Amino acid sequence: MATRCCSFELEATCGDARAGTLQLPHGAVPTPAFMPVGTRGTVRGIAPDELARSGSRLVLANTYHLWVRPGHEVVRGLGGLHRFMSWDGPILTDSGGYQVFSMRDRAVVSEEGVRICSPEDGQYRTLTPEVAIEVQEALGVDIAMAFDECLEHPATRARAQQSTARTLRWLDRCVAARRRPDQTALFGILQGGLHEDLRRDHAEQLIHRDLDGYAVGGLSVGEDREDLIAFARYSASLLPTDRVRYLMGVGHPIDIVEAVLAGIDLFDCVLPTRAGRHGQGYTSEGRRNLRNGRYREDRRPLDPACPCPACTGFSRAYLSHLIRAGERLGGRLLTLHNLTYYQRLVARLRSAIEVDDPQQLRGLRAEAALATMPVVE
Amino acid sequence: MATRCCSFELEATCGDARAGTLQLPHGAVPTPAFMPVGTRGTVRGIAPDELARSGSRLVLANTYHLWVRPGHEVVRGLGGLHRFMSWDGPILTDSGGYQVFSMRDRAVVSEEGVRICSPEDGQYRTLTPEVAIEVQEALGVDIAMAFDECLEHPATRARAQQSTARTLRWLDRCVAARRRPDQTALFGILQGGLHEDLRRDHAEQLIHRDLDGYAVGGLSVGEDREDLIAFARYSASLLPTDRVRYLMGVGHPIDIVEAVLAGIDLFDCVLPTRAGRHGQGYTSEGRRNLRNGRYREDRRPLDPACPCPACTGFSRAYLSHLIRAGERLGGRLLTLHNLTYYQRLVARLRSAIEVDDPQQLRGLRAEAALATMPVVE
Repeated sequence: MATRCCSFELEATCGDARAGTLQLPHGAVPTPAFMPVGTRGTVRGIAPDELARSGSRLVLANTYHLWVRPGHEVVRGLGGLHRFMSWDGPILTDSGGYQVFSMRDRAVVSEEGVRICSPEDGQYRTLTPEVAIEVQEALGVDIAMAFDECLEHPATRARAQQSTARTLRWLDRCVAARRRPDQTALFGILQGGLHEDLRRDHAEQLIHRDLDGYAVGGLSVGEDREDLIAFARYSASLLPTDRVRYLMGVGHPIDIVEAVLAGIDLFDCVLPTRAGRHGQGYTSEGRRNLRNGRYREDRRPLDPACPCPACTGFSRAYLSHLIRAGERLGGRLLTLHNLTYYQRLVARLRSAIEVDDPQQLRGLRAEAALATMPVVE
Repeated sequence: MATRCCSFELEATCGDARAGTLQLPHGAVPTPAFMPVGTRGTVRGIAPDELARSGSRLVLANTYHLWVRPGHEVVRGLGGLHRFMSWDGPILTDSGGYQVFSMRDRAVVSEEGVRICSPEDGQYRTLTPEVAIEVQEALGVDIAMAFDECLEHPATRARAQQSTARTLRWLDRCVAARRRPDQTALFGILQGGLHEDLRRDHAEQLIHRDLDGYAVGGLSVGEDREDLIAFARYSASLLPTDRVRYLMGVGHPIDIVEAVLAGIDLFDCVLPTRAGRHGQGYTSEGRRNLRNGRYREDRRPLDPACPCPACTGFSRAYLSHLIRAGERLGGRLLTLHNLTYYQRLVARLRSAIEVDDPQQLRGLRAEAALATMPVVE
């Protein structure tokens, strides 16, 4: 294995929950950590300085989307993705596997890779493990994700077995394609659907490759919440303690707390940003829908305890006015609020783990459960 | 006349061009000044602190829109428009006359006022001079505009004469409806279409009312640019030197320079904000369309001399990527840039007037002419 550019130090535990630090070329990330989703090299509507002030350290961008537009060679020529988007903190890119999965009707999967007709321009392109690595290294990100086949749900055991075998072959092609292991780390993705034995076998094979970090994939694709958490816990138990564990595409506040309690360190999800654009704000009293007329004359801040620009600068009445009038400042402020909510949640989880306080963790679990539910007044 | 809350001090001239200070309840505004348009109590996508940093001192909001949603009584109950939108600088509200004009097919005009079927909710409402004043005073703005009939273009002399007469009767009803002249100033609007004698007669009648300031209305509604400037100049010449002169709805950078040279002090226009949302950026080399593929690999700032967040933080390539990808950060950054461009333009006009330097003014005129034209490379 070539020089590593990524390391994880486990600093504290509380039950299965872990606090640590992920060291990356563009900085250190305390875990548990939540990554905002900046698919096209921008977290929708949010400037990089605001993102940093929300407490975000590590941002997720998307290989497929940046490959199609503006193109990885363009970004490389402009000095890489960090310079392109003016974000000097760490960046992780999703490999494109999930995008292919979400565009199944436009894609043909073969052993070579995935041939896809891009909705952006109608062009046919083939995304392979080699291309995924080339693109991510050209973007110059801190963490590249292996190109995997994201399994549909539900899937038969035979189908899941085929898929994990292919994901493993693709992983080996990803490893072989790396040219800059000293600058871009590679995380493998644990698949296996809802089959414990397949997950266990796949985990063994992954660990054998001694990767920089491990993601738990193939969850949050339509299964029950009980299965999500049970398989996150089982997957985490299979992974080495000295590597970071990333649960992809999760989730609601309660899912994040449950997954941290199950031994997961790292998360990404579109929920806080998408919900914000749609007028929803997470608070310790529940998820508020600012489109609701009940806020029309409500002079209180969205969440009195929150230090974000939406809560310190404006009333619920104004936020509600912006959302109802279709004014984009509304989505922007609620996005900032929700990111701040998520970042404060993971920071408080970390504090509770650092002092090994299960009581605090239980309190956060209850609060996150409430935050996940719509406010009924 | 009751206590005034608005005064204008003329500080310097250069030819007909004027530099002065407009004193208002929420602060002083150096003129020439440009007001960003914040129709619904928000300049689209821009936070109040960013607006202030763009050099904007005075913001325009809209009586009609805030009357319909969220309602002036709601805003009053929340402490007024300043507190509602978190803007502590001065605010001027357009009276709704222009909105009625722009929704002619949904409105019936009578001597009483305008009955309108609001596209927002399908409700019928009647906007009258009394309602316009009541709403603006409830909003607590620094400057209320008189409710006028905005004349269509072209209009016959007879039609223009009828319309100015009605506007004058409505003005008297506005004056009589005022309850807070010590907190909200009232500006009259000079009409008369493209008829010098009607404008002269109307100006005499307006001046007789001794109002806090005077706007030049009924221009920028489809007439030639020559007529726009000629009638702005003629209108300015009819107005007293010790009151501020506001040319409504103007305009392109070159129009602003020409109108300042013609003796106008104050402007509002949707162009910098709308053009920004549509991917256009004003620069000293012309108006750049960032949607154009030519910027795909252009690592230079949009305008190297500009201190705005778009120019100091990002490349043309990134701005172009955001615009082409439909990412809202693009419109936001270009809006900020364009507002900064307009504010720097009026600030430089003011400096040139202060030192009585016609040469500098000519230079700014040439630059603004270029900024108004699309860049051809």
